[in-house]
Amino acid sequence: MEDSWATLGVDLHVETRGGAAPDAPGAPRSGVRRGLTDALREAVRGGRLAPGTRLPSSRSLAADLGIARNTVADAYADLVAEGWLTARQGSGTRVAERDVPRPTGPARPQRVPGGLTHDLKPGSPDLSAFPRAEWLKAARRAFAHAPNEAFGYSDRRGRIELRTALAAYLARARGVHADPDRIVVCAGFVGALRLLSGVLHDRLGVRDVAVDSYGLGFHWGIMGEAGLRTRPLGVDELGTRTEELWAPASASGAGADADAGGPVSAEGADVGGTVSSGAGGSVQAVLLTPSHQFPTGVPLSPSRRADVVDWARRAGGLILEDDYDGEFRYDRQPVGALQGLDPDRVVYLGTASKSLAPGLRLAWMVLPPDLAAEVAAHTDGGGWAVGALDQLTLAEFLTSGAYDRHVRASRLRYRRRRDQLVAALAERAPDVRPTGIAAGLHAVLRLPPGTEQSVIQAANWQRLGVQGLGWFRHPEAVGPRVDALVVGYGTPTERGWPGALEALCRVLP
Amino acid sequence: MEDSWATLGVDLHVETRGGAAPDAPGAPRSGVRRGLTDALREAVRGGRLAPGTRLPSSRSLAADLGIARNTVADAYADLVAEGWLTARQGSGTRVAERDVPRPTGPARPQRVPGGLTHDLKPGSPDLSAFPRAEWLKAARRAFAHAPNEAFGYSDRRGRIELRTALAAYLARARGVHADPDRIVVCAGFVGALRLLSGVLHDRLGVRDVAVDSYGLGFHWGIMGEAGLRTRPLGVDELGTRTEELWAPASASGAGADADAGGPVSAEGADVGGTVSSGAGGSVQAVLLTPSHQFPTGVPLSPSRRADVVDWARRAGGLILEDDYDGEFRYDRQPVGALQGLDPDRVVYLGTASKSLAPGLRLAWMVLPPDLAAEVAAHTDGGGWAVGALDQLTLAEFLTSGAYDRHVRASRLRYRRRRDQLVAALAERAPDVRPTGIAAGLHAVLRLPPGTEQSVIQAANWQRLGVQGLGWFRHPEAVGPRVDALVVGYGTPTERGWPGALEALCRVLP
Repeated sequence: MEDSWATLGVDLHVETRGGAAPDAPGAPRSGVRRGLTDALREAVRGGRLAPGTRLPSSRSLAADLGIARNTVADAYADLVAEGWLTARQGSGTRVAERDVPRPTGPARPQRVPGGLTHDLKPGSPDLSAFPRAEWLKAARRAFAHAPNEAFGYSDRRGRIELRTALAAYLARARGVHADPDRIVVCAGFVGALRLLSGVLHDRLGVRDVAVDSYGLGFHWGIMGEAGLRTRPLGVDELGTRTEELWAPASASGAGADADAGGPVSAEGADVGGTVSSGAGGSVQAVLLTPSHQFPTGVPLSPSRRADVVDWARRAGGLILEDDYDGEFRYDRQPVGALQGLDPDRVVYLGTASKSLAPGLRLAWMVLPPDLAAEVAAHTDGGGWAVGALDQLTLAEFLTSGAYDRHVRASRLRYRRRRDQLVAALAERAPDVRPTGIAAGLHAVLRLPPGTEQSVIQAANWQRLGVQGLGWFRHPEAVGPRVDALVVGYGTPTERGWPGALEALCRVLP
Repeated sequence: MEDSWATLGVDLHVETRGGAAPDAPGAPRSGVRRGLTDALREAVRGGRLAPGTRLPSSRSLAADLGIARNTVADAYADLVAEGWLTARQGSGTRVAERDVPRPTGPARPQRVPGGLTHDLKPGSPDLSAFPRAEWLKAARRAFAHAPNEAFGYSDRRGRIELRTALAAYLARARGVHADPDRIVVCAGFVGALRLLSGVLHDRLGVRDVAVDSYGLGFHWGIMGEAGLRTRPLGVDELGTRTEELWAPASASGAGADADAGGPVSAEGADVGGTVSSGAGGSVQAVLLTPSHQFPTGVPLSPSRRADVVDWARRAGGLILEDDYDGEFRYDRQPVGALQGLDPDRVVYLGTASKSLAPGLRLAWMVLPPDLAAEVAAHTDGGGWAVGALDQLTLAEFLTSGAYDRHVRASRLRYRRRRDQLVAALAERAPDVRPTGIAAGLHAVLRLPPGTEQSVIQAANWQRLGVQGLGWFRHPEAVGPRVDALVVGYGTPTERGWPGALEALCRVLP
């Protein structure tokens, strides 16, 4: 018989895997089918059945083996599903030409994810600028000297090499009072916030955390999952309205900053007391982005920096400082980290997601002394969860100066883009006012009242990814809404940036 | 009092971890012991107890704290095993001299962590064998072709390149029915178990999970933190006594395996019904290590493999298959993954921690179709938490064949060590019987009754790190204890192995 099994020259041992009796009650799927599937898979894998080989028909093989035809058909179907065989009409069942999916391959054309033509949503640096060659060099140097134990189960706070390098860098670049013993390396800011939220809730008994009335919903969600309730504070042109931390339930903060009139000043003037409503004095911690409020872009004013530290001391509160883009400032002197004002009251949170790439999943916390051990003990999502190789490489990257060089180059590039954005708006969309542009990788474009939704819709039609300010609003925030776009000018590639800017100008009123 | 606790000047807060009441049923190990262990560890780690400090006698500390002396002795023993404390005859228990690892610098002489001269504790491969050069080569190849978006926020299940490579590898090497869409990359087995436990509890309403009566306490702890109660199943020479999954509360499984007589057969014969005691039929999931039960080393027998799948189908239960060292087997045909028997009922969990290095923090789950989306939605500790660069590199490592080459070389090396261990025991410790040695990186050495503690103590005096079987016993396990050592012959470096073996022989009876 032309296509009988014997012609294939394959000695087919049909056995049931793991010794399961073929018809034992509950034997998962027929034992014979399983045995046949395994035997065929082995024959293909081992090369005894070469790619392209045509298999006997299920009827013919079933007859050869003295088993049911359906069993053979099922086995074939399993192996087709697994990719070992192919079944095509008219050509029968054949051993698949295996081209094992190669993760690597010729470089593909630049593409923006999510089916967009241009992406100006904030939150990501230019991924094409990741310093691949420099990173590999640092990895090679780090590997050459890493002790064997670096590849084992490690300190739950993270590798000492990285914590040491971070302590030096953060002191130098951000004015952070850092000590390697009080640093915990985390799997991204999300990993840090999750870990910290758990400790705040479970160990410190915190229940209410004040947050900005504009921020990232998934951050609030992470805190919520840990059992923490987030309470929005107003944001105005001087930054977060920290005076609301002090307000009793019934008090109003209105008037505390009579000159408030920034991009979202309407909220600022109106949300006094929000944080404490119904729970006066219950807030025990506050999450802030003091260097560059996200997303409004306002730095926290000097007097409010002092004020929030004062609050933390008197109320026994804790400040969580999210310094997500502290490296990037353009027109002003760098604002040091708030943590420098009181390392006992501030948890400093930093990340490589903006300065290098989110894909690294590398972030860090600098903790007050009495919290460091608590967090280290609580961590599984902490340093222990972060690959040692990336940690060693980042340590080398920091100590070798490659990190500073990369940040400097990035700062120039983003500043140029920002200047181009401001110039383009002045020329082509004079009714749109850019704010929050002294630092960071994004700008807030104030729109004429009532136009935010229509601009976003127009952008969607053009497949231009943008986000409205409303998207960042806390559900419990009060006060009127302000129409604005949050534009991440850091997101596109260098090549994509001019087109993205052009597309933006086209949809603006 | 010369050695009273107060003299140490340490404010010792003994608390129970995770809020579990000390005597809550199912609290993994005594809460007081756990709390004391944690407090002491923190005091050492934080420097409040300086290296060399002599600790009070267990009698004295027990009196100070108003707790049982045995509890203190147990906590001390735990910390000696972990390397934080040392116990030497004539000098009492002291804080270990720690050599803090230096960041980078010239290669240092090989040293064993935890102040040990030799380390034979199980759970780690030979870290000196990590293929640094090959890994860097794979990283370079992966980087050369990675798309820009690989450096951004990625699929929460992990990089598609890695999931694709894993699906092919697991089908080929472990008989796993894998599909990239149903794979979730995790930050180590711990990350996977934490994620899965959360989904089981929060989304599927699972409350009771059966586990082996010998296993890893911190795994039970992770499940406990998610709200899951662990219920121990007996383990005998045929592996986990899966028949206990079926037992009603009052039934006894005794006699089901009359021939049971393996390393922990005494439990096996006696713990029938344990899992269901007071909660017949309440177990909805079971965590198993079918290829090589950890730590006893027994593979799950074919009939029990079929039985547990049958149970899962009839009871609507879920099997969590921890395939931690499935790549390493010596004397027998590879046992395919249990998952191959019923991909709808088994979650397959694999890891690079034994085959490559724990420091990578790379593990993966293959999930039943209906659970895959649930887990992906739940993940923050999942693929999103794992650095993309290591994921791309592992994908390249797998597809290029470097992984297979490394596993083959490791298998030869560990097999040789195992043979040397067995030969040395036959010659120098004929009363000690090695078991569980057909696979894996560790062996169980049966000791004469009543000698486990004295052997461990002798090993501690020699600064030889070993663990007794008792350390792995579930607190609710019933049946007599069996004296044995769990010896990780994979842990030492090649250079350190002969000395470690010699040291082991010296402390054996």
